[in-house]
Amino acid sequence: MTTLLDTNALRAIVADVGLDQLMDEMTERLRRSFAEFDDKSVSTITRTGFSYDEPQFGLLEWMPSMEEGERIAMKVVGYHPENPTVNKLPSVMATTTLHDATTGRLLAITDATLLTALRTGAASALATRLLAPVDATTMLMIGCGAQAVSQIHAVSRVRPIEQVLIFDTDDVVQASLRSRLPESVRDQVALRPVHADQLKDALSHVDLVCTATSVEPGVGSVLPDGPHRPDLHVNAVGADFPGKVELPAELVRRAVVIPDDVDQCLIEGEAQRLERDELGPTIIELSKEPELAEKLAGGLTVFDSTGWAVEDRIAAELALDHATRVGVGTDVELQDFTADPYDPYELGR
Amino acid sequence: MTTLLDTNALRAIVADVGLDQLMDEMTERLRRSFAEFDDKSVSTITRTGFSYDEPQFGLLEWMPSMEEGERIAMKVVGYHPENPTVNKLPSVMATTTLHDATTGRLLAITDATLLTALRTGAASALATRLLAPVDATTMLMIGCGAQAVSQIHAVSRVRPIEQVLIFDTDDVVQASLRSRLPESVRDQVALRPVHADQLKDALSHVDLVCTATSVEPGVGSVLPDGPHRPDLHVNAVGADFPGKVELPAELVRRAVVIPDDVDQCLIEGEAQRLERDELGPTIIELSKEPELAEKLAGGLTVFDSTGWAVEDRIAAELALDHATRVGVGTDVELQDFTADPYDPYELGR
Repeated sequence: MTTLLDTNALRAIVADVGLDQLMDEMTERLRRSFAEFDDKSVSTITRTGFSYDEPQFGLLEWMPSMEEGERIAMKVVGYHPENPTVNKLPSVMATTTLHDATTGRLLAITDATLLTALRTGAASALATRLLAPVDATTMLMIGCGAQAVSQIHAVSRVRPIEQVLIFDTDDVVQASLRSRLPESVRDQVALRPVHADQLKDALSHVDLVCTATSVEPGVGSVLPDGPHRPDLHVNAVGADFPGKVELPAELVRRAVVIPDDVDQCLIEGEAQRLERDELGPTIIELSKEPELAEKLAGGLTVFDSTGWAVEDRIAAELALDHATRVGVGTDVELQDFTADPYDPYELGR
Repeated sequence: MTTLLDTNALRAIVADVGLDQLMDEMTERLRRSFAEFDDKSVSTITRTGFSYDEPQFGLLEWMPSMEEGERIAMKVVGYHPENPTVNKLPSVMATTTLHDATTGRLLAITDATLLTALRTGAASALATRLLAPVDATTMLMIGCGAQAVSQIHAVSRVRPIEQVLIFDTDDVVQASLRSRLPESVRDQVALRPVHADQLKDALSHVDLVCTATSVEPGVGSVLPDGPHRPDLHVNAVGADFPGKVELPAELVRRAVVIPDDVDQCLIEGEAQRLERDELGPTIIELSKEPELAEKLAGGLTVFDSTGWAVEDRIAAELALDHATRVGVGTDVELQDFTADPYDPYELGR
């Protein structure tokens, strides 16, 4: 039997656990998993996929990871920035499958759209905890789409954020962000919309920056360079395709850039403007050595969050653990006609 | 909504259509699709995956293909040769997902274990129709596992096969093959088990050979070289991993080798022993130019069937078409909380 976690199962999990605790658990699982990360037992294959410009720009990618002898996770994720306006669909939609790494059997399928938002938020929470000013109360959020929701949520769980300056090229999306935040965040945080010409000023007085836009490849950055506090921390979330970047090249060069996956960041992250030997330690290395992070936190730091396959396995496992506990999820018969393993036609009898 | 074709849905389709017609339709769809194949609108990415030796040898691979602006298919397929004896599971198990190539949305998930056997059989049927002696009545089948069932089935649909000499290193599997064949095949074909020391003699008087074994990488070939009819055709199905080959190197060198996917065959097919410029035309090229196949059919030909991602898309589409017609399949809510495409937390409200 294969466990299917559909939208209703995830809804039941969220209802039971609550978004705040789910985000905290996701962040803690990422931290623990990175701190204990062993590249002898965990493998990933740099994501690849199909991209196309017609009928609209989009890409569909797969992100595989294996914990040897345990499980293989495969997230298939689409990025279609015109989806919200043209098709009333999220720009990022994903499904994760889990396979037994001994027999190859399909163990589970889960909707991973919410999980992708959660784990991307949680990765930023982890980087923020390691690198951002402890007393950070103000944040600049560039991009007010779906990912902004979990970014603000995640960061406000680990820093005493009071005010978020928000910017989007789409006024309607900018205006609706508040209504999409969890209640706990709305209670804690005031949003202040800013215009494009106020971004430089905003940068000069915030404690934290997050970028999560759908800027087209070749068009970014989405932020002007300028003065900022010396220990500013930036969670750069949107760059995930060759040519797509969100931060000014000069800012990236000044910063210590913390990649999630080095190879992937050099291909499609902010690190596209850097050489391999110009990168800082990875988020995995910092999770193993928080003292090192503490030292870096005194200066400008950029978390180059391209999204890592291991995060998706951890997110799927978190959902499955809660599904088991809450008693939700559907058993479906896939790969299940096995009375005679040598008989592929068994179901024809 | 995403359409889920589980084991029961496939069972209903097989019950409605019948295995014979399903095989014929699969073969015809492959032929038509190859004959009309346009590499400007169809893309594949050479399969890759994880392989491991512990706790047992196995590999899990993904096989993506895209028909531009239409659909992206992704088969995730495991090959775990010890599964039948150790885990009572098929050695080859697979699932295929279909995505919309405009929005990335997940359209369908189907069990692809039967479909993999069907399409692998159908590819051999197509190659056989193009390249094997028209009056072929005898066949040598090496390997009597799951794939042998659909190989014998497929080939006996396109040639007047009367006798199949069968060989397997496992006596029990060899003895049970007959019981696993469809009734129509049992009526048409007599099976005659042969021993390892009779293979050379068998090769000398059959019209067709098929190899579909789980021989370990580095251990093959599984067939001694020797005299054979000059226009022998071989469907070499098992080679699908670096180092895994089934045919004697000398036989491969003497033959015109017809790859399904050139790059893949050079990495993991019988063509591992050849250079790119030593390969014959592909099965796609022959489907476009049957006259060329007719010329080649006078000599020794080897269809190097490593299994091609496009075949898996066609198989999944065939199953879905029948599911729609028969009215089976389950609608599941995956990626389905889209009242506000900018709100990943919608299901938390």
